[in-house]
Amino acid sequence: MTRITRVSVDDLRFPTSWDQHGSDAMNKDPDYSAAYVTLHTDSTHTGHGLVFTLGRGTDLCVSAVEALKERVEGQSLSKITQNFATFWREMTTGDSQLRWLGPEKGTVHMAAGAIINAIWDLWAKVEGKPLWRLLCELSPETLVNSIDFRYLTDALTPEEALEILKKLEPTRQERIQQLEATGYPAYTTSTGWLGYSDDRLRQLCQEALEAGWNCFKIKVGGDLEQDIHRLTLVREEIGPDRVLMLDANQIWDVGEAIEWMQKLSRFNPLWIEEPTNPDDVVGHQTISKGIQPIGVATGEMGQNRVLFKQLLQLGAIQFCQIDSCRLGGVNEVLSVILMAAKFGVPVCPHGGGVGLCEHIQHLAIFDYVAVSGSLEQRWTEYVDHLHEHFEDPVVIRQGHYQLPTAAGYSLDLKPESIADYKFPDGRVWREHQDRLNS
Amino acid sequence: MTRITRVSVDDLRFPTSWDQHGSDAMNKDPDYSAAYVTLHTDSTHTGHGLVFTLGRGTDLCVSAVEALKERVEGQSLSKITQNFATFWREMTTGDSQLRWLGPEKGTVHMAAGAIINAIWDLWAKVEGKPLWRLLCELSPETLVNSIDFRYLTDALTPEEALEILKKLEPTRQERIQQLEATGYPAYTTSTGWLGYSDDRLRQLCQEALEAGWNCFKIKVGGDLEQDIHRLTLVREEIGPDRVLMLDANQIWDVGEAIEWMQKLSRFNPLWIEEPTNPDDVVGHQTISKGIQPIGVATGEMGQNRVLFKQLLQLGAIQFCQIDSCRLGGVNEVLSVILMAAKFGVPVCPHGGGVGLCEHIQHLAIFDYVAVSGSLEQRWTEYVDHLHEHFEDPVVIRQGHYQLPTAAGYSLDLKPESIADYKFPDGRVWREHQDRLNS
Repeated sequence: MTRITRVSVDDLRFPTSWDQHGSDAMNKDPDYSAAYVTLHTDSTHTGHGLVFTLGRGTDLCVSAVEALKERVEGQSLSKITQNFATFWREMTTGDSQLRWLGPEKGTVHMAAGAIINAIWDLWAKVEGKPLWRLLCELSPETLVNSIDFRYLTDALTPEEALEILKKLEPTRQERIQQLEATGYPAYTTSTGWLGYSDDRLRQLCQEALEAGWNCFKIKVGGDLEQDIHRLTLVREEIGPDRVLMLDANQIWDVGEAIEWMQKLSRFNPLWIEEPTNPDDVVGHQTISKGIQPIGVATGEMGQNRVLFKQLLQLGAIQFCQIDSCRLGGVNEVLSVILMAAKFGVPVCPHGGGVGLCEHIQHLAIFDYVAVSGSLEQRWTEYVDHLHEHFEDPVVIRQGHYQLPTAAGYSLDLKPESIADYKFPDGRVWREHQDRLNS
Repeated sequence: MTRITRVSVDDLRFPTSWDQHGSDAMNKDPDYSAAYVTLHTDSTHTGHGLVFTLGRGTDLCVSAVEALKERVEGQSLSKITQNFATFWREMTTGDSQLRWLGPEKGTVHMAAGAIINAIWDLWAKVEGKPLWRLLCELSPETLVNSIDFRYLTDALTPEEALEILKKLEPTRQERIQQLEATGYPAYTTSTGWLGYSDDRLRQLCQEALEAGWNCFKIKVGGDLEQDIHRLTLVREEIGPDRVLMLDANQIWDVGEAIEWMQKLSRFNPLWIEEPTNPDDVVGHQTISKGIQPIGVATGEMGQNRVLFKQLLQLGAIQFCQIDSCRLGGVNEVLSVILMAAKFGVPVCPHGGGVGLCEHIQHLAIFDYVAVSGSLEQRWTEYVDHLHEHFEDPVVIRQGHYQLPTAAGYSLDLKPESIADYKFPDGRVWREHQDRLNS
């Protein structure tokens, strides 16, 4: 029996704004960061989870973890996982005073999600399995028992969820073996950030093609002429048939999104991602109707399962982009994956930042093996950032995520990375301050 | 010219959980609290705004104010108000790193709103007018110029907003004079909290009737039999014709809300408030269709104007309950009031907590004078809590808010209240700690 004895949390910031990695129409200067949670236990295992942030505000997430941690300290792992949905609801909304700051959204919800993910990481480690395998070996009943269906039952009942999971249960092993041979298909965003020169963009496309990539995502929405120029160049490099996704990062109003995308439709994009405000379910529905056959994708800022429920109910998205760190951890992600399956919408998780790719590979594998049973129109995002800080980083071959083999959720950071990037007094930040002072 | 020299922020907590004031189906033990913002200036005026909270988490809001305050320190008031929409967007989303924690929702957005409200308070004080009068004397162009229409233009354009405001501009003075004579109609929530005994509930109804109240709101959703019992009792006291509102504080799933309300329909309620999750626009639409002619009201946890836009677009609410402290201050409230007018939905602001009634009286008066021109189906919430801490508290006569006369937004707290309720080292909290230790 494993007991969680103590929770600690670090403010880690990677100075990615010092070059132009990760810039888009909305996020000009991200310093990919994390409120990094550690569950200490009475065994040799530790559990890790993180809130992914863009720099400033990480301290707020650290404080939110501190405010929530008493709910997990002293608890036994098996008691938590036996009634995981109950525990999840208590963690995310059980403190009615903190709930007021959400509910189930923003800083407090993200902090709760990091703790929840750390519990899953710990559980997988205790079981000696990578998280995807733990999930794929849990019974339909245990999976359903981990989901809080509150506010979902008009779209998905526990009984329906169970039915979806039971249908694929007998054939899970076949799909695991298939993925062990092929990996899970990915697309790359590393080529298409704003702020890259033409030459660099061409060069990155060429390098990606050589590395075996067949799907490419390009940022748009800064300037229409510039978008047309860059997409012309990208199509020249990747050819007319490879998959091209576009990403506007919430820059447009609804009408503007439709007009702008009509002008980019000749580049034959598969989807436009985040065409407008992430809360605007009705707006996404309008855009989706207005730009067919181009699909609408959103979700990286989807605050909770209630938002995803509505996006699916209204047919507002054709691609469902779950975010492993914005939702309240694996439990809430499971509910969204199951709703997407019911509504027939492919799940294409959001990667990038720090650690998101490490998370989402597990979720995508589980989706294929146990829920959707399909790889059609499904690609998981890959961004080539900051993997070097992880003990067990993602492995990509020929545009496919290779199945993780180490036990856990792949979120263990190297001790030297923690020491170097701790804010504000890790080595990198101290040296930066010294440079500013000199 | 007034310049904002410095921002300070206090964590103030009122121990309202020590008795059962304010308990409902979802919020069991609120300690009504505030992150209380003070704008210090180079003149004799100070500006005040606050984030209303329920206790724990107030420290997060304080930290968020600290993170945002550099955007206003050193600024001239007139420069801010001349381009108020631009300033507003910068304050709420200009820091792309902090924006990730929302966007435009939760802790950071509420903190931005408190700073924004403090600017309006300061502006009104500099002009020597109560806020409602400042708003009612601003030109339609200046009002429109204070609103960020980003993400709203599919529902309301600046031109449409201008048209709405211009229509009533010539007759504003008539309605001001009318309200100065009658006050603005209110309803009371103070009678109907859960946890009150039958005798206390009857007594509170009787006292309210004697005080001139004609509209009553009762909390429901804990237990159906108990609800029926309490509503029977309330109808006995207030009679069949007085207005009765019900409030479920988000306790139900969509189907459950419809079923439960069908069973309460015989009590002839005007509205059911917060029947389900506050983010669930589609769910509220379904409930609204399912329980006609009972109306649906929501908004006290409405995170931003994009949510209200959708509630109005889908006809999901029949009563629009803006929250003065959850939205990003007066500027965002104005956009919601104007959208509600366009869609023909009455605005009935959310009161209670600490300071909410002090805020919303100004907003309701402005709505009537300059936007809706109607009092039909409009009541502003009144809760009899904590007004004694304000320098210029609300004045209620015969169930009507009396027009504030002091300059500003009525948010100045008494210095002794600040000293007593500062957390954790004000007098009240120190004495509490001493009691716990002894």
